[in-house]
Amino acid sequence: DRDYQRLAAFRHALRHFLRFSEEAARSEGLTPNQHQLLLAVRGWPGATTPTISQLADQLQLRVHSTSELVQRAASAELIRLVTDPEDHRRLHVELTDGGHSKLRSLSVLHREELRRFRAHLADLLDVLDEPASP
Amino acid sequence: DRDYQRLAAFRHALRHFLRFSEEAARSEGLTPNQHQLLLAVRGWPGATTPTISQLADQLQLRVHSTSELVQRAASAELIRLVTDPEDHRRLHVELTDGGHSKLRSLSVLHREELRRFRAHLADLLDVLDEPASP
Repeated sequence: DRDYQRLAAFRHALRHFLRFSEEAARSEGLTPNQHQLLLAVRGWPGATTPTISQLADQLQLRVHSTSELVQRAASAELIRLVTDPEDHRRLHVELTDGGHSKLRSLSVLHREELRRFRAHLADLLDVLDEPASP
Repeated sequence: DRDYQRLAAFRHALRHFLRFSEEAARSEGLTPNQHQLLLAVRGWPGATTPTISQLADQLQLRVHSTSELVQRAASAELIRLVTDPEDHRRLHVELTDGGHSKLRSLSVLHREELRRFRAHLADLLDVLDEPASP
């Protein structure tokens, strides 16, 4: 019973966090997907900036949808496309100053919300530490 | 930089978990919302089973949408509606044996997936423990 209660509380907290995140993105004039795009570009762990197909994998979207998302974000001057110096057919995605600034504001808001969410995460980790009793 | 990388990795893990969860629900013949409904009923912390408006709050859906979701789940014999013995206008939602069984299977699968997700949760908790550097 207690396990189901904690799993249900975790999913409730997750829905709350995702709704918060969508509304925060919209309050900055971004779609939720644009926010996730900026974060994926900024948080890309590789040595170079990511390509569209790398972003598609990171965002779990189709390459076609990611390409449209990137084009719209470029029109909104949140990101820019830069040609790979070693392969001119490859395009890399970089943040503009405006994109950096929006992402920074959103990340401050998210950090605060995630701190509220952390109690549920900690509680979930406890469930997972215990032997399975489904 | 490291903070953005961890936030981006967390969101990627979260998308992966949510997609896993949707596919797991469908593999049991449920919609993702039906699975969340069963979990919300089973994990309800109150002394009695929940009403539709309590479930709407838990699921962060409108009462009207929750009511439709409950009707369809009742038709699929996953849940049943029971009249409150003290107030006959109030309906409570209970799981059927079939609903219990589907939820049990899904919870075993989710528990395994959540164990894989936990490394990202633990990493996120580390970011939140550090002083803010947005």
